[in-house]
This record gives sequence, structure tokens and C-alpha cells, in this order.
Amino acid sequence: MIKITLPDGSVREYASGVTPHEVALSISEGLARNVISANFNGTTVETVTPLTTDGSLTLYTWNDADGKKAFWHSTSHVMAQALQEMYPGIKLTIGPAIDNGFYYDVDFGANKISDNDFKAIEDRILAISKEKHEFKMRSATKAEALELYKDNEYKTELIQNLEDGTISFCDHATFTDLCRGGHIPNTGIIKAVKILSVAGAYWRGDEKNKQLTRVYGISFPKQKELTEYLEMIEEAKRRDHRKLGKELELFHFSQRVGQGLPLWLPKGAALRDRLEQFLRKAQKKAGYEQVVTPHIGQKELYVTSGHYAKYGADSFQPIHTPAEGEEFLLKPMNCPHHCEIYNAKPWSYKDLPKRYAEFGTVYRYEQSGELHGLTRVRGFTQDDAHIFCTPDQLDEEFKKVIDLVLYVFGSLGFENFTAQVSVRDLSNPDKYIGSVENWEKAENAIISAAKDKGLNYVVESGEAAFYGPKLDFMVKDALGRSWQLGTIQVDYNLPERFDLTYKGADDKLHRPVMIHRAPFGSMERFIAILLEHTGGHFPLWLMPEQVIILSLSEKYENYAKKVLTLLENNEIRAKLDDRNETIGKKIREAELQKYPYMLIIGEEEEKNNQVSVRKQGESGKTNTSMSIEEFSSLIQDEINKTIKQF
Amino acid sequence: MIKITLPDGSVREYASGVTPHEVALSISEGLARNVISANFNGTTVETVTPLTTDGSLTLYTWNDADGKKAFWHSTSHVMAQALQEMYPGIKLTIGPAIDNGFYYDVDFGANKISDNDFKAIEDRILAISKEKHEFKMRSATKAEALELYKDNEYKTELIQNLEDGTISFCDHATFTDLCRGGHIPNTGIIKAVKILSVAGAYWRGDEKNKQLTRVYGISFPKQKELTEYLEMIEEAKRRDHRKLGKELELFHFSQRVGQGLPLWLPKGAALRDRLEQFLRKAQKKAGYEQVVTPHIGQKELYVTSGHYAKYGADSFQPIHTPAEGEEFLLKPMNCPHHCEIYNAKPWSYKDLPKRYAEFGTVYRYEQSGELHGLTRVRGFTQDDAHIFCTPDQLDEEFKKVIDLVLYVFGSLGFENFTAQVSVRDLSNPDKYIGSVENWEKAENAIISAAKDKGLNYVVESGEAAFYGPKLDFMVKDALGRSWQLGTIQVDYNLPERFDLTYKGADDKLHRPVMIHRAPFGSMERFIAILLEHTGGHFPLWLMPEQVIILSLSEKYENYAKKVLTLLENNEIRAKLDDRNETIGKKIREAELQKYPYMLIIGEEEEKNNQVSVRKQGESGKTNTSMSIEEFSSLIQDEINKTIKQF
Repeated sequence: MIKITLPDGSVREYASGVTPHEVALSISEGLARNVISANFNGTTVETVTPLTTDGSLTLYTWNDADGKKAFWHSTSHVMAQALQEMYPGIKLTIGPAIDNGFYYDVDFGANKISDNDFKAIEDRILAISKEKHEFKMRSATKAEALELYKDNEYKTELIQNLEDGTISFCDHATFTDLCRGGHIPNTGIIKAVKILSVAGAYWRGDEKNKQLTRVYGISFPKQKELTEYLEMIEEAKRRDHRKLGKELELFHFSQRVGQGLPLWLPKGAALRDRLEQFLRKAQKKAGYEQVVTPHIGQKELYVTSGHYAKYGADSFQPIHTPAEGEEFLLKPMNCPHHCEIYNAKPWSYKDLPKRYAEFGTVYRYEQSGELHGLTRVRGFTQDDAHIFCTPDQLDEEFKKVIDLVLYVFGSLGFENFTAQVSVRDLSNPDKYIGSVENWEKAENAIISAAKDKGLNYVVESGEAAFYGPKLDFMVKDALGRSWQLGTIQVDYNLPERFDLTYKGADDKLHRPVMIHRAPFGSMERFIAILLEHTGGHFPLWLMPEQVIILSLSEKYENYAKKVLTLLENNEIRAKLDDRNETIGKKIREAELQKYPYMLIIGEEEEKNNQVSVRKQGESGKTNTSMSIEEFSSLIQDEINKTIKQF
Repeated sequence: MIKITLPDGSVREYASGVTPHEVALSISEGLARNVISANFNGTTVETVTPLTTDGSLTLYTWNDADGKKAFWHSTSHVMAQALQEMYPGIKLTIGPAIDNGFYYDVDFGANKISDNDFKAIEDRILAISKEKHEFKMRSATKAEALELYKDNEYKTELIQNLEDGTISFCDHATFTDLCRGGHIPNTGIIKAVKILSVAGAYWRGDEKNKQLTRVYGISFPKQKELTEYLEMIEEAKRRDHRKLGKELELFHFSQRVGQGLPLWLPKGAALRDRLEQFLRKAQKKAGYEQVVTPHIGQKELYVTSGHYAKYGADSFQPIHTPAEGEEFLLKPMNCPHHCEIYNAKPWSYKDLPKRYAEFGTVYRYEQSGELHGLTRVRGFTQDDAHIFCTPDQLDEEFKKVIDLVLYVFGSLGFENFTAQVSVRDLSNPDKYIGSVENWEKAENAIISAAKDKGLNYVVESGEAAFYGPKLDFMVKDALGRSWQLGTIQVDYNLPERFDLTYKGADDKLHRPVMIHRAPFGSMERFIAILLEHTGGHFPLWLMPEQVIILSLSEKYENYAKKVLTLLENNEIRAKLDDRNETIGKKIREAELQKYPYMLIIGEEEEKNNQVSVRKQGESGKTNTSMSIEEFSSLIQDEINKTIKQF
């Protein structure tokens, strides 16, 4: 008999040789049907692998990331079989599962493969899958393996680099591949597959080696899921913030200025400013004070903070001066500057908390290959703030920060989010600085705040930074993709390094605690995510231009200008399109530019002192005529629905 | 007979040997009384120097900078005489006039001189002056000169370095000094003198040489002028922006962050933001669009703009990356970035002018000895904008910029200013880029704009930059000191270097003209000047906190909080001082913190639902009681008086 520990901590006894599938069956038939992979004592196993020792077992279904990995890894075997049957003589190399699907790198020799062949490959994969072949692992000697692949120099190289005794094959149907394991029970559950693309890839990623063809695919247990996935991909392409940013003229990258350094065009800068003013207003109410600090600091500043020792070599290098031998660094974060502001005068416990906020632009070196639109840049503006408080105030302050973050998410239409609380690894106390008492206080403060505010949160042990515990928000966008947004971190380290103090009620000097927080994270990344989440249809309050006035002809120009002024007096951001173009063209362009409202101005409207209102995307509907006052209240009502007073 | 040309262009004939004093007398007796120095054909001469050739003559009175220079240079002779009489055996070295007064560097030997001796020296100078000694120049041979100074190694060194034939002495009373000339007629007009300070100074400024004593003084033709000058100096000390900045907690310098890099504390950041929002609002009405650009750019960007070739070696040095060998520079100006924004898409003449504005922080290396508070820093934020227009639009655009600058000055209480128009040196056409036609157009546009707007301006030939003509504003502050504020420059160079184009009505590509402009200049320098101009009593609309509520005791805390909320609802920036301190102390501190209004809250006020209003600096007056509504209108009225709608 062996003892199997399940993830919920329960321990069950089974006869030695029991398989994961049998364990699942002992729990429920439904589970057994859905289990497609498993992990035993930290190693991926097949659902049919006999278990012969005590150990911890995790069962995976399609809904688990590891389940998907087994599913896609297995489909990669089937694709390899299909390709080998369809293109005899090709040489297979490696074919792993990836985050979204799988690929196989193949030396096609004289064969060529293109988009036109994808359908046939998919059909062949599905035909094989339907036959419900089981995946069977078996060990092999190095000699056997080398014999099998005697005509394949790639696999031969792989085998030669493997240590003896760990070589294994996986067989299914007529196909065998060198493989470490981790498969679904049989091919029958692969119900939908899509070959996504082909691309060149050098053998072992080295451009001195031969270029192979990488075939990308993805598969699903249901056709509906594939359809949804492909729709999501298409929608994601349409919503790609780089594409929208160009179309809406929000930002621009110039090769002369440098990669990863966005230039914000007028509309983008207005959007940024609106977001900034929105957060400033809420922060003011929450007792934050704005500060402004330079974008460079002496190297010494970052030596004090510890950032230089940790990141110096991988960052933008020091700036030297022509005389005097000084060394400056582009600031990678704002905290050291804010510590120096705190240090500008002595504080009493009665003055705390101090909450310093800054939309601080920081610069961090990223390799050019890592850069991506606005989500991965070399210069970005953090909606940063640092709260300096007494340890007793931490609880209350943390809750207030959560309130602020939730207010921000709510006002911007992010309704689907979870939180992760990162705490110490209790078995490794030397890893952390600060007293155990303070850590306990801080961790309890965060967990009780998360509970109090009704957050859907998980606690991750060992995920805290060495300087303090933290809470991160994960937000799901309209396409179901997760983004990390908004972080709140407790810090015992910088107050120590910068010798920050306050005079307590006992008249002695004490160390304040620091909270770092940024609800947006960075303006650049946040705007990118917001663009992809909304497809450019921002909440009305945020739109750089909320209304466009389209005059039917030059005759109505004066009335159109009057409407513009009236709207502006009502603090509605409007633009007038009085070009000499057809109304059809003007409407089409306004739709593309995502104007939430179009006001058509012609003879009838001028006569009745009204506007004809057309809403973005409602091309089927009849326009509604109303007075400017009615239209202004309509706008105000819509805004009040999304954005509440903080 | 000789021909003398006067500054107004008129030519008069005189007998050879006529003196400047006689020329003055031939014009008017009043002028002759006031002329204290003169310049003939570019050389300073005495009022009694006989003129023996044709030439241009300028006569100087006390009101001219050169008149003051002669006055102070002459006083320096008298001081040297006084010192020699009072401290026998001292060795004189050099004693020039400076911007404000004069000094003499003296080797006092065993003698000591301190503040206590100043009165006696002043008395001695005035006693000598009263005797109305004339200053008489005479030539001397090198041998004579060396003989006179045989015991003075300093003068001996000076004489040995002089070329033969140019040695001259000046005699007055019993005193002789080695001198090139430039004196007032006689000592009698020196009516007031003040020894300001003594300081150490190395002979010839070289720290390897002997340290001498530098005696600083200033003199005036009237006692009243000396009194006013000394009051101004005292007031300037009280208003020193570095002192006020610390007292009002506006900004702070940290040695760790680095010299010349201000940290803006909450109140200072709020002040900056208010100024920024004020200008943004006016700029928006004037058709400017805000943009945001990074604080670094590839070195290549500044090679293109020409800044690297010109300033590279003296600037912050390039920032290297750990991999990829890229080179970036801290941006010293925003224009190259704005050119790249212009270049982000093609333009038609119908789209112009484009007006890009940015509160752009730039970094320029200054030697540490040059740094001074906020007026000379290493990082500062320009209220920058670049207008890209057709040559035909230049006239109109220039006028609009002047309107904006005048609006800014008016709203901030600068009422005393002049303008300087800098144009080409017509005799040196190769110095300038761009066509003669465009230069003429631009210069005429600027001059006609200055005329049109009723500016008090002068035209300075040869003062234009090589890339275009410009207009600078010189503002006088409350202490009568002049500051250069606000510049408008035309630029033909960058459009060429960045290959900026627009499609004209002729369907061909043309070069736009660029205007650089910054009404404030930089936020840092402007705030420094504003602090010194107002002594910290900013216009009410600009005050970070306009009102402070002072409760008589804790009993009225609730009512005080209610008042605070009501004020905030009326968009009045208020703060509550509810500390457990006496009302006397609270008022004193509020006065020091320059709160324009103090509202005293006690039993009477709560009962009547009123506030008791005390205005900054009006300690003698009785406080006035009024309702919150009345107080709010009072504030609004005061604001409306200074700041108009643009």
C-alpha cells in the first residue's frame, strides 16, 4: 500500500501501482473523465503511470495550465506524425507546448509548406485523433535511440547530449518520438486544431545553424473553443494598441529619438493628462501631496538605496560631467527622491502619514528585442506615491490605498479582477529584513484589508520581496486576458537605508514604514491595456474629444461654431469638422476616430436651434434631435454613471 | 575746425582742442552740469580731454551705465588715497568699478581692517571729496613709473607687463595712481559713500599668489540715493528666493540627489502646477496642443539638430547602454523632439500653423560654482512651445505670441518691461542661414508686431542668432532689477536640418518656419523671480493656499471644519489650523507663511454663522465679520481684478 497526498491535504491509501487515472476514479467518475495529465512529487507523469511510492499527486484537467500543456504537447506529436506521413523524408527536431498552443521545428528538405497546406494538415491531425490512439511511454537505450534516428542529425545531436539512462520514447499509432512524457490519455479528445503560421527558426536558436521551419498550431477539446479563440485573436489584432495608437494619433515612435521612447501626440497627451487629472483629484481627496523631482540623481543616491548594486550593470550607464568628475544616473524609480523629500525636515508622529505623489517619469534599459509598443518601453511615467506612516497606521493606510485602486478600476470599466497577497517564506526567515513583529503586523494588515474590502484574493508564501509583503491586482480585460495592474508594497528597507525618522509620542526617534503604490502602474502600459480593453472606445469622461460637430455644408458654419461654443461652455470637449467634404465621408471618419457622439448640423437644426445626435456604432438607428441643453445633460448623465466622486 | 558727430546723428563743428565738457556746454548748461564722462571714437575720455580730430562723441551723465562706471572708478581713487593716508605703508594693486560700485585690492601688510573701520574710511573719503579735487591724467615713461612704485611689487609687475608708450598716471589732490583714464570732472560730486565689505582675494586671482584684502564700496551723487540703495539691498536679502523658498517650504536641495537639481516640496509643486495650468488654459485658447516627449534622445538626434557639435563637449556626457552600443543624451532642449512629432505625418498648408507645447524638463550641465538657487540650475522645466507655420503666417503668429506673453506678465503683476528685437548684422551676411527674403520678412514681422502691440522696444543689429531674428522681454521687478523673461525666436535652421515640409497650395513641398517661444522661460527661474518680485506675496489666484482658518479653541473645531468644506466647495484653497496653540501664535505663523487671508473662528462667529476676516500684513486693522458667501465673493473679486480671461 502507498499513501497519496492530494492538494487539499487529504491522504488516501492505494495499492502500489495505482495510476493517476485510478486515483481520480476513486474520487469521482466525472473527475476521472476530465483528468488529462498529472504531477507526482513535482514531476509530470502520464495518467496511466503506475505510482509505487508515497507522494503528493496533483490531477490536471483542461482548465489547468498544466492540463493545456499536456494537451498541446500531445497534439504536437500528432502533428509530427501527420507531417511525416504527408511529407516523407522530412526531419523532425523538437516540438514543445507553448503558452498558447505548440510548435514543431522541422527540416522540410526539398519540401515547401505554406498557408495553403494548413487545411490538409489539420484534417490529417483530426483523422488520426479520431482513432483514439493511446500515448505510451517506454525507455530506450542510447544505442536504440541512435539507431532509430540514424538519418536525423538533429535528433542524433539531442540524444548524444542526453545523459545515459534517461532516454525515453513515446509511441502512438504508427509514430514514435523521443520524449520525456506528459501526455493526455489518448488522441480522441483532440476535437479541434488550427495550424496558425509557419516561420523560420534556426536549429537550437543559433543563426550559424541551419534554418528550420517552425510550424505553429493550437488545439482544443471542443470546436466552439477554437472558434472563440480565433475570434479573440482577430479581435486582439483589431485592438492592438500599436495599431489603434497610430490610427487615433495617440503616440508615435521615432527612430531618431530612439526605440522604446514614445512621443505623445496631442490626442494621446490629452488622454494622459485626463487620466492624470482624474487620479490627482482622487489623490488630493485622499490626502496625497504632489511633489516634483528631477529625472536624474547622483550615483551615490542609488548606492544608498541599494538599486545601484542590484541593477547598475544592466541599466542605462552613468552620465559623466565634463569637469568635476560627478556621476549621475537616469532615475529608474522615484522612491529615493521621495525619501530625500521626507528627509528635508524633521517630523513628529502627529505629522504622519505623509503621502507624496508624483507622476514621475523613469528610465529603465530594456534590450531592443524586449520592447513592445507601450507595454514594454525604456521610459515611462509611473503614477507613483510613497506613504510614510507609523507601523500602527499601516492597517488603515493599506485599506485606503485599496479603496483608491478599486475606485480607479471602477471608473475605467475594469470589473473583473483578483488580488495576490505575497508574504514571507516562513521556513527561510534570513531572507527578509525588518523585525518579525513588523512583518506579522504588515502581513496581517494586508490580509485583513483584502478581506475587509471583499477582494477575491490568494495568499502566496515566499512571494514577498525581501523588504516587505505586497498586494498585486490582476485584471481581466474584455478579451479575457490577464494583466497585472496596480501594486501596493510595504517597505522596511528604504526607511532604514535613508535613515528616515519621526519623533514618537515617547519623544524618541522611530522608523516610519513606507508604502509604495501605483494604481495604473505606468501611464504607458495602462493606456496600452485600456486601448486593448476598450478597443479605443474609452469611457466618455476620458475621451480626448467627446463630440464632433459635422456641418452639412458651409452655410451652417456659423450655427456650427455657436454649437461648439455652447458645448465648450458646458465643459464638453468638442471639435468642429467644417471641411468641405460630404457628410457621408465626415461620418465615416468620425466613426473610425471613435468619436462617441456626432452632431449633424443642417438647415432643420439651425432653424429649430437643435442638434441631430448620432451615437458611435449605431449606424442603423435614426438620429435624435434635441436642444444643446438636452444633449449636455445626456452627456453629463452618461459620465455620472461611470465616474463617481471619490 | 573738427567735426563732432553726436549720438542722434547730428554733426557739429568746433575748434580743434574742444573738450567734451565744452561740447556739452554748447548744447545746454544743464547738460554740461551733469556730464561726468565721455566716449570719443569708442574710447573712454575725460570731460576735459581736448579733442583734436573728427569723430563720434557720446556724453555720459550719472544716469548712464558708463557715467556710473566713471563715478565709481573715480571714487576708488579717492578711497585708495584715504586708505594710504590712514594706513601708511600699505601697497595698492588694482581698483576697478564693477556693476554695483567699486573695489580696491590692497596688501595691508601688518595692518588689519574690519567693519569697525568702515565709518572712518567713509568720513575720510567724503572729507577729501568735499575739497573738489580735479582728476588730471598725464603720461609717464616706464622708468618714471617703476621709480614711483619701486617699493610696490604689484604695481611694478603691472608696469612691466604694460607695453611701452601707453603708461599714464592720474593725479588728484596729493594722490597719484597708475591709470588708463575715465574720471568724473572732480571729487566734489561724490556726496555719499558706503564701504560695503572686505574679503580675501588672491593677487591676479591665482591662489598660489599672496592673499590681498579686497575693499568693496559704492558711492552716489546724493545721500538719498545711497539710502535707497541700501534699503533695496536689505529688501533683496529678505526676498532672496533661496531664503523664501526654505521658509515657505517650496523647494529643497539634497546633496545626495545632486547640486542644481531642485526637489519641489508639496507647496512648491502646487505653485508650479497652478502656473502651469494657468498657461495651459491660455495656450489652449490660443490653439496650442500639448505633447509629451522623453527626457533623453539618441545622440544622433542632436547630431541632426546641430546641438551636439555645438555643445556636446561641455554638456552632460552620453549615456551608454549595457548591450547594443547605443548612445543617448539628456535632452538640453525640446525642439528636436517636437520636430520629430511634426515629422510623424505629412502636412498640408491647410493644417498649419501647428503649435506644439510642452512643459518639458531639460538638463544642462553648469559648473557647480555657477549654480545659484533656482535661477541657475542643472535641470529645469521650460514652458516651451514650437509653432510650425508658413512664411506668410509668421506675422500673425508672432503677434499672437506677443499677446500671450503680455497676458502672462499682466496676470502676474509684472507691469514694467521693455523689449529687444535682435536682427542681422547686414555687413556680415554669411553669418546667417536662410534666404535674405525670409530674413527681411521675419525681421519686418517682428518689428511691426512690436510696434503694433505698443511695446517699448529697441532694435539691436547683429544680435540675432545665426538661425533667425528674435524678440526678448526684459522685465523690471519691484526692486528695480532687470530680468530677461520671455523670448520669441524665429528659426529657419531646424526645419532645414529635420527636413520639415508641408504641401503648399501649389501642390509642391515647402519648408515651414519655426517659432520657439517661452513666456516664463523656465518654471524654476520664473518662480525665483516671482518670489523676489512679490516677496512671497503672490497674486491671490496663484497662492498655493489662499486662506487659513484659525480656531480660537477646540470647541469650535466642528464649525471650523464646516467653514473649510464650504470654502472648498467655492473652490477656495484653504487650510485649517486646529492645533492646540494660542491664537496669537497661530496668527504670527500664518503671517510668516504669507497666507493672504486668515479667518478667525470663535464663539461669536459660530453663533452668527460668520467668519472674522484678517488680511495679511494688516495687523493694525480690526477684523471684519462676514458670511462665507460674502467672503467668497470678496476673494473672487480680488482674483478677477488681476487675472482676466485670455
